[in-house]
Amino acid sequence: MDDTNQRRPVPPTTVRRLSTYYRVLGAVLADGQSNVSSETLASMTGFTAAQVRRDLAYFGSFGKRGVGYAVSLLRQRLAAILGIDRGWRIGLVGVGNLGRALMAYPGFNNQGFDAVAAFDSDPAVIGSVVNGQRVRPIGNLAAAVRDEQIEMVIVTVPAEAAQQVVDQAIAAGVRAILNFAPTQLRVPSHVQLSSVDLAVEVEYLTYSLAE
Amino acid sequence: MDDTNQRRPVPPTTVRRLSTYYRVLGAVLADGQSNVSSETLASMTGFTAAQVRRDLAYFGSFGKRGVGYAVSLLRQRLAAILGIDRGWRIGLVGVGNLGRALMAYPGFNNQGFDAVAAFDSDPAVIGSVVNGQRVRPIGNLAAAVRDEQIEMVIVTVPAEAAQQVVDQAIAAGVRAILNFAPTQLRVPSHVQLSSVDLAVEVEYLTYSLAE
Repeated sequence: MDDTNQRRPVPPTTVRRLSTYYRVLGAVLADGQSNVSSETLASMTGFTAAQVRRDLAYFGSFGKRGVGYAVSLLRQRLAAILGIDRGWRIGLVGVGNLGRALMAYPGFNNQGFDAVAAFDSDPAVIGSVVNGQRVRPIGNLAAAVRDEQIEMVIVTVPAEAAQQVVDQAIAAGVRAILNFAPTQLRVPSHVQLSSVDLAVEVEYLTYSLAE
Repeated sequence: MDDTNQRRPVPPTTVRRLSTYYRVLGAVLADGQSNVSSETLASMTGFTAAQVRRDLAYFGSFGKRGVGYAVSLLRQRLAAILGIDRGWRIGLVGVGNLGRALMAYPGFNNQGFDAVAAFDSDPAVIGSVVNGQRVRPIGNLAAAVRDEQIEMVIVTVPAEAAQQVVDQAIAAGVRAILNFAPTQLRVPSHVQLSSVDLAVEVEYLTYSLAE
């Protein structure tokens, strides 16, 4: 269980697979198993056993040859690595269909993600209650980030409004942005940015079909 | 412009970056530029110039040293590679908030993706019109796939309903699935599957913050 201080840089695709291992280990745990092999994790995730071992090796030696991984311990370690062993205060900017879908997304609340505030620019939406949150005017975003220690903002506003929203949130102290607006955002290097472009996912499939 | 028949296998992350290059080239074209360097593409996308050159080299030699890439030609080639130089007939299963958001997503219709049918199991939703489509009962999915040559299905039903929906669609002839349900789906090897787990994206950010 040695966790060296000088880690190799971890590829983003490995980090994303850790999330999948974490969820699959929850199912293994619920099933009452205390150990699990890389082969079982492979068959449950669709990755290869070699990939599973390589991914987990980035973070120390979790497994024992012939015994496999200790399910509960590995799951705890993955939660700590992924930063989901604590809650995160998240603001949602843009309460359209996608914003509403995200606020109601069952995977979020189970994981310690807490949407503590929601913002929109539409007077017809401001003041309405969505998933237990009263929607606030977007002009209150910066003050809310400061006063309520919001650490991450999820952006589902139209493309042309996204950069301004992000600039305001960062100036007020937000450290991470999850962007769904179909546009390239500029953020300073101390801020983490992840963009989800839904058309990219469809194009990945049409690429495979067209080949 | 030689396109060898024996291509090296292309990593999924490269394919996803092609989508980004395609969109950025649209902006360059609208700007009236006929050539573009890998450095410019790098600064517009946030990838490195070396990464841009490596990605495009998978598909032949598009660029000329000192001149850069011919914008219009490269964009056409990327469209062909990504399979978006033709329309695709797409069915949407699950007309909740996420389904509605996807049907209205501006990036989809611009790209030749045509949601020709929408399905739901909720009697209160069936028969209503969403983005120009009358929502049909989910029991009609297989017949619609067959009769209307639906090639791809986007799944936004709850996790526990997803596998059954996917099995029906595949039995009726669908060749690609874009899955948003937070569950691992099993599909036969001739079917392309891409899953978007929105919690994974948040965990990628919390990983970065926790580091």
